[in-house]
Amino acid sequence: MATERAGASGRGRTAGAGRRTADDRVTIAMVARAAGVSVPTVSKVLNGRDAVGPETRRRVEDALIATGYQRRSRAEAGRSGLVDFMIGGLDSAWACELLRGAEQEAYRLGARLVLTATHDGQERPREWLQSASRPTDGVVLVVSGKAGQAVAERLRSIDVPFVVIDQVGGYDRDVPTIGATNWAGGFAATEHLTGLGHRRIGMITGPMDVQCSLERLDGYRAALGRAGIAPDETLVRHGDHHAESGRRAAAELFDLPDPPTAVFAGCDEQAAGVYEEAHARGLRIPGDLSVVGFDDVDMCRWMTPRLTTIRQPLAQMAALAVRNVLETAHTPGEQPLRLELSTTLVVRESTAPPGPRPPRPGLASS
Amino acid sequence: MATERAGASGRGRTAGAGRRTADDRVTIAMVARAAGVSVPTVSKVLNGRDAVGPETRRRVEDALIATGYQRRSRAEAGRSGLVDFMIGGLDSAWACELLRGAEQEAYRLGARLVLTATHDGQERPREWLQSASRPTDGVVLVVSGKAGQAVAERLRSIDVPFVVIDQVGGYDRDVPTIGATNWAGGFAATEHLTGLGHRRIGMITGPMDVQCSLERLDGYRAALGRAGIAPDETLVRHGDHHAESGRRAAAELFDLPDPPTAVFAGCDEQAAGVYEEAHARGLRIPGDLSVVGFDDVDMCRWMTPRLTTIRQPLAQMAALAVRNVLETAHTPGEQPLRLELSTTLVVRESTAPPGPRPPRPGLASS
Repeated sequence: MATERAGASGRGRTAGAGRRTADDRVTIAMVARAAGVSVPTVSKVLNGRDAVGPETRRRVEDALIATGYQRRSRAEAGRSGLVDFMIGGLDSAWACELLRGAEQEAYRLGARLVLTATHDGQERPREWLQSASRPTDGVVLVVSGKAGQAVAERLRSIDVPFVVIDQVGGYDRDVPTIGATNWAGGFAATEHLTGLGHRRIGMITGPMDVQCSLERLDGYRAALGRAGIAPDETLVRHGDHHAESGRRAAAELFDLPDPPTAVFAGCDEQAAGVYEEAHARGLRIPGDLSVVGFDDVDMCRWMTPRLTTIRQPLAQMAALAVRNVLETAHTPGEQPLRLELSTTLVVRESTAPPGPRPPRPGLASS
Repeated sequence: MATERAGASGRGRTAGAGRRTADDRVTIAMVARAAGVSVPTVSKVLNGRDAVGPETRRRVEDALIATGYQRRSRAEAGRSGLVDFMIGGLDSAWACELLRGAEQEAYRLGARLVLTATHDGQERPREWLQSASRPTDGVVLVVSGKAGQAVAERLRSIDVPFVVIDQVGGYDRDVPTIGATNWAGGFAATEHLTGLGHRRIGMITGPMDVQCSLERLDGYRAALGRAGIAPDETLVRHGDHHAESGRRAAAELFDLPDPPTAVFAGCDEQAAGVYEEAHARGLRIPGDLSVVGFDDVDMCRWMTPRLTTIRQPLAQMAALAVRNVLETAHTPGEQPLRLELSTTLVVRESTAPPGPRPPRPGLASS
């Protein structure tokens, strides 16, 4: 499914770059005002999407004519040579891995990567948007929920192309996003554990308002079903993507009358929290407990035992986001709304068949 | 010790920003050619430093007059609102921690941080320098050896202010650098171990062509001396700042006829390598072996047991570098040549008195 986004006019960048005044241009926001509709509605019409009713569509089309709105090709638009990378925080290996991929691709494409972290989620994007002259060829957004949606709407209204990396969510359906095959990853992680003979498999999810968390949970349930294991909702715990929530959830699971012999954590950091709680209780990994993570960031190598996890190609996802943004910025044309890169199971030392077993050499946790 | 660097004229940035042509300006490089000396020599003269002989100084002063070289204040120079952060690679928690601090400070000062990684050390800085129109208010350099020196010389010749963060080294003495108190850190790490009763203390250094590695080693030797322990050079092993070298060096130390009961690693990643080798040999940490790292990056929390280490305030170092570069960029005046932020010992679970001892609860390695 593909679309030519309103962003294709790239006028916002030109105005932002101060090479032309915005005054002599009709923006989508102006069309929206004239039609008495929202900016996303105008762009839906421009994108030829069906989500708009015939009456609204006619009003928008009239406004497009009345205002004299014209698309212009990327070629016409000025280039700043800058691509913005806006991320919710730099306090995780996950973020650094994305950043690494984005920087490499921006460099390869001759652009400079401008880094902005939105430490407080809400406030910074606002300020970022308010800052007047910000020449940019496009924006890669790794910002969650409301804040991200606010940035996305603003970028759309000033015709700046952007792509969202979807670890985070809460965006309109017609916002272009790049992600990984989360469902398949959740399925593979769980199937690996059922294949080892585990029947009591706990799952610790990420935030449930985030699409990828839902997909991983669904993959987990599907794999249990495939193995003929009846779902037990007491084995599913919810957390954020930080280690503390993983440790908290692990404690709840270990306190169950019939605790799990394996845990699938929503991300590697949560898995590290599971390790902490297991170690604190003298549980051996993988002897007494198997653990699978998600992401495959560097820390997996430093955990003892080394973590079995689902690898998502974060660097490639970020690189693809930068490439798509710049291509959208410099060539009129179509951009896929949703791209998913495949996840892969990486088996290390934290998983084994259930039940007590002698220490394996080289595993300090045993 | 302070100096007004030739960078204070900021002309390179202006030319780079394309707001004025470079043609109507005399650069330091032109003065150097006219005088038949190197660019650093000209800037030494401009900085009023003594390192230049009277004859050379006269030649340079004549050339300054002949070419009509004029300083201009930062105020006169155009501002791009961009500060470049150039780092040797984004493949370590150390790098991400620096980046986090730099981004936060750039944001606080209303500048945008442009990120460039020099993955292949040599090639990228060259390309980066060749790229014609690169408006920048200044550059924070975290690039080692030759590549870094090449960038530094080039930046100086086009009057772009810069600061070097000195994990890496190999720069002229008159390049402004920001670092941590490495000697004091090495001393504190070793003193902590001698205080616990260790007498056989191994050290794994970083690259010996890097100033901070030398300082940490000297601190280690000084602390041994303070404790009345005769230095044993067989206990000193050299590596780079990666885990593999830490593991290799640890293997050498463990193979000694009289192996150490404690190891001070030059950085946390090397300490992780020591953990790997210790675990592989069934050595318990800290029961059989105490380990101290250096840096205090996130991974210390995920290692089992949690790593005792020397904290260097990486984020603050990077923030200070950004601030100094922008202040140099926007106000003519002096900049200290060398700033050091203090290191602190962070005691966690990887150190204990020597000799076999019962496992401590919560330590999975025991």
